[in-house]
Amino acid sequence: MTEACWVNGIPQDQVPVSDRGLQYGDGLFETLPAKHGQIPLLAYHLDRLHTGCERLAINAPSREKLQSELLSAACGEHHAILKLLITRGTGGRGYRPPPDSETTRVLIRHPWPDHPPAWSEVGIQLRVCSTRLGHNSRLAGLKHLNRLEQVLARAEWSERDPWQEGLMLDEEGAVIEGTMTNVFVRLVDDRRVTPELSRCGVAGVMRRHLLERSIEAGEPVHKTHLSMKELQGAREVFMCNSLIGIWPVRRLADQEYAVGDWTRRMQHWAREAGIGTH
Amino acid sequence: MTEACWVNGIPQDQVPVSDRGLQYGDGLFETLPAKHGQIPLLAYHLDRLHTGCERLAINAPSREKLQSELLSAACGEHHAILKLLITRGTGGRGYRPPPDSETTRVLIRHPWPDHPPAWSEVGIQLRVCSTRLGHNSRLAGLKHLNRLEQVLARAEWSERDPWQEGLMLDEEGAVIEGTMTNVFVRLVDDRRVTPELSRCGVAGVMRRHLLERSIEAGEPVHKTHLSMKELQGAREVFMCNSLIGIWPVRRLADQEYAVGDWTRRMQHWAREAGIGTH
Repeated sequence: MTEACWVNGIPQDQVPVSDRGLQYGDGLFETLPAKHGQIPLLAYHLDRLHTGCERLAINAPSREKLQSELLSAACGEHHAILKLLITRGTGGRGYRPPPDSETTRVLIRHPWPDHPPAWSEVGIQLRVCSTRLGHNSRLAGLKHLNRLEQVLARAEWSERDPWQEGLMLDEEGAVIEGTMTNVFVRLVDDRRVTPELSRCGVAGVMRRHLLERSIEAGEPVHKTHLSMKELQGAREVFMCNSLIGIWPVRRLADQEYAVGDWTRRMQHWAREAGIGTH
Repeated sequence: MTEACWVNGIPQDQVPVSDRGLQYGDGLFETLPAKHGQIPLLAYHLDRLHTGCERLAINAPSREKLQSELLSAACGEHHAILKLLITRGTGGRGYRPPPDSETTRVLIRHPWPDHPPAWSEVGIQLRVCSTRLGHNSRLAGLKHLNRLEQVLARAEWSERDPWQEGLMLDEEGAVIEGTMTNVFVRLVDDRRVTPELSRCGVAGVMRRHLLERSIEAGEPVHKTHLSMKELQGAREVFMCNSLIGIWPVRRLADQEYAVGDWTRRMQHWAREAGIGTH
């Protein structure tokens, strides 16, 4: 793997300070796995990016251009992470988006982070973060560049601590997601659920894949309000994203969970999409 | 005025794409007026920046260093705007703040934006934005780099429209602030108030100056919850920040307001601090 970086298709590792991505977090991003030159669930990443551009009224680069830049960054790479940022471009001192701004594309290739296989196999320990997610229905679901809540939440523990991921609640105490993952739960009454994200949270690409795959299989996962109490009494809990695949949760505070059939089936579906090592 | 830009004290107009300001909006900013080589209320700007660094656990550059860089950028300038960004620096692909990151300082000098004097004299028309402010008590009050809510709010109207500023409510409908200003109100019962900002909003430098000055004068302004109904029935309303000083509000939807004695006294106090042209 070679670390590399492009700005608007040109090898380059700087952006102008006037870029609205820096000035206001005025943009979006995607983090994608590159495996043997392929990008699993690429279409879903591009879908979310285009939804985001539409909702923020950012001029979206064409799917074809993004796809070809991403695939050529992935080409020949055994295993790497690609991070693509799309910002509204440069311009203006004030908040008002300039009418004619040209979108900035930043593409960065990182080494693959090797997580211990045990995290997929026997599961992880989850922390409940004290940093909460604020509600904003206009931004909910998007993977935008305003990520201070996640930065503060992730700063609550270090690598010496026993947790591998942190759970984030909203301001009302509802369970929403992990700092970098979505959460799926098999409740005590056997219902399978994941939090609905109409007021906050990031609608993950792996979440979408699992939701769709579970409908096809005739055992749908429902998007719903989820309380800490329901989570604590659950039968199975796992965290997922499009890089790690699925990490079962084996412990959350005093609560222990088994890694059940449902989680294993979901891991199988993630691997079918090319994601997850277990 | 000459437009100019420095990164960590060096004339330069780019930052690395790995800067966490771009990646996550992981930083803070201040916008300061430079007038005849001076920066009014400079100490208050530095106070807010240091509070912000403390709350985000960003290594704050020393006050002396920031002050000297700001004053040398102001030196010889008849009238300009300085924008100072402080980010957590470069490092890491994930949200977790690297333990040893070196803060990035970006300082930009812009031309002074000439607003029509009538906006200070006879007042402005205010729009009620449909974009709402989400609650996050850990970020409330800070001038951080996650500003998508303001960008979306400011995109709701253009320069062809009759409004000069937009009013932002929180998710519960409480009045919080303008897109780039704070709001002060003299209610129908003569109480003088400004919204409390414990759950969202930016605690402005001019707001602090006016709050302190009004206590000294024995006619304190109270920080409180403010409803649209109270605002609509108010006697006087004005918007303020440390660049424009004070803009009286003469119209909000169907409601018209007179520019009263209280607003004029506040404008006098702003001018005493060196801010506002009227």
